[in-house]
Amino acid sequence: MKPPAPPTDDALSCRPIGVVRSCFKQKFGIPRQSGLASEARATLEFHPPFDRAEAFEGLDAFSHIWLLFWFHHNPPARPWKPTVRPPRLGGNTRRGVFATRSPFRPNPIGLSVVELTAVERRDGRVRLQLKGVDLLDGTPVLDVKPYLPYVDRVEQARGGFASAPPTTSLPVEFTPAAQARLRQLEQHHPGLEILIRQLLASDPRPAYRQGEDSSHQGMRLYDFDLRWQVCDGRILVTELADYRPQKGR
Amino acid sequence: MKPPAPPTDDALSCRPIGVVRSCFKQKFGIPRQSGLASEARATLEFHPPFDRAEAFEGLDAFSHIWLLFWFHHNPPARPWKPTVRPPRLGGNTRRGVFATRSPFRPNPIGLSVVELTAVERRDGRVRLQLKGVDLLDGTPVLDVKPYLPYVDRVEQARGGFASAPPTTSLPVEFTPAAQARLRQLEQHHPGLEILIRQLLASDPRPAYRQGEDSSHQGMRLYDFDLRWQVCDGRILVTELADYRPQKGR
Repeated sequence: MKPPAPPTDDALSCRPIGVVRSCFKQKFGIPRQSGLASEARATLEFHPPFDRAEAFEGLDAFSHIWLLFWFHHNPPARPWKPTVRPPRLGGNTRRGVFATRSPFRPNPIGLSVVELTAVERRDGRVRLQLKGVDLLDGTPVLDVKPYLPYVDRVEQARGGFASAPPTTSLPVEFTPAAQARLRQLEQHHPGLEILIRQLLASDPRPAYRQGEDSSHQGMRLYDFDLRWQVCDGRILVTELADYRPQKGR
Repeated sequence: MKPPAPPTDDALSCRPIGVVRSCFKQKFGIPRQSGLASEARATLEFHPPFDRAEAFEGLDAFSHIWLLFWFHHNPPARPWKPTVRPPRLGGNTRRGVFATRSPFRPNPIGLSVVELTAVERRDGRVRLQLKGVDLLDGTPVLDVKPYLPYVDRVEQARGGFASAPPTTSLPVEFTPAAQARLRQLEQHHPGLEILIRQLLASDPRPAYRQGEDSSHQGMRLYDFDLRWQVCDGRILVTELADYRPQKGR
């Protein structure tokens, strides 16, 4: 088995057609696949000339779309490696990179299917409203394709180690103060309570730490800091504070 | 709605990790999506160092994989256009490029889900055996990802104008001479008769010509020329000749 000669056209050049504006402002806490948190919302904005309305003619008829995107947050100093440690396997078991959806790939291109809730048109330009995203705010997008059920929905597919969604599901409760703040925030962020429950019930910490009590956990969501504790197998949301940038963050 | 500023990092650089060796040697006759012709076979060969066996550890557990690939056969002089004419709509109706899976996209990256029939290992190197491909021989591949049923199989998805497979299904018959040649060729190409039936039953001609009789049609498949006629709503395979390159082809 002789490997094929390396290609002569070594580099293929891509350019971002747009950028994701999502509720996720940092990597910690982002669902590990699309669709796991249906209330995770984003807007997809396009760079001219890719924002022209005619380029999206007919897209409204599709309920879901594929996004091809660039894993822009990979540390530049971290090179591709043949094996990775998938979080789904507890973070200690190695798998071949091509047997996973890890971001650390030879070509750092991601693939997510998301729900298309609106094709917004204004002044002949388009942006897309999305749900069920697993994308960091600022993610560059390379392509949008319609999800074709008769092709992309493979009924007979078997899924290896990841054939079912993560099963961790902890009860999520709110302190009275957090509950009150939630009611205010929901006026600007519809579905926020459901989103928080979807994100925290699966315990976003690495699998090897799940089950441990912890007094302080936090993630930035939209423009606030969400804080919670893990105690006796349940999640207690203690605070939804305005986001204040700290030095070094 | 102000469009976002164009990105400062204009070009993102990709490199092929491998190349597809498929039964399809020319664009005419290739199924328009993956999975439509289950017997359409290919081998995916990898360029070093992406062929290392450890990079595929665990992939055997998946029945299907995604291929991200480069539409390398697009004419270089043909620029991206906001609208295209999908063959599924007869080739005369325009749709926005982002509402189709057309190859002529701002970033000419294709996405296909294919059946993984074998992960072959030899001397610490890997190649993949595939079925159900819609890929031209020589297609550069950018990424291999496992198909995750719990994420990628979206049960509630609606599919717009392409929610069902193409419905054209003509009877396919063989002349006695073609039948005899087929038996010989099947020793080297298992499933060849089924493949030919899958490819021709949907009449690979443009939709606006389907239904017309025609005396001579042909496509190159593997290393032979497949020739047929369309007559009275049926396909008659007349020849499976050894491929002989012609001037200008």
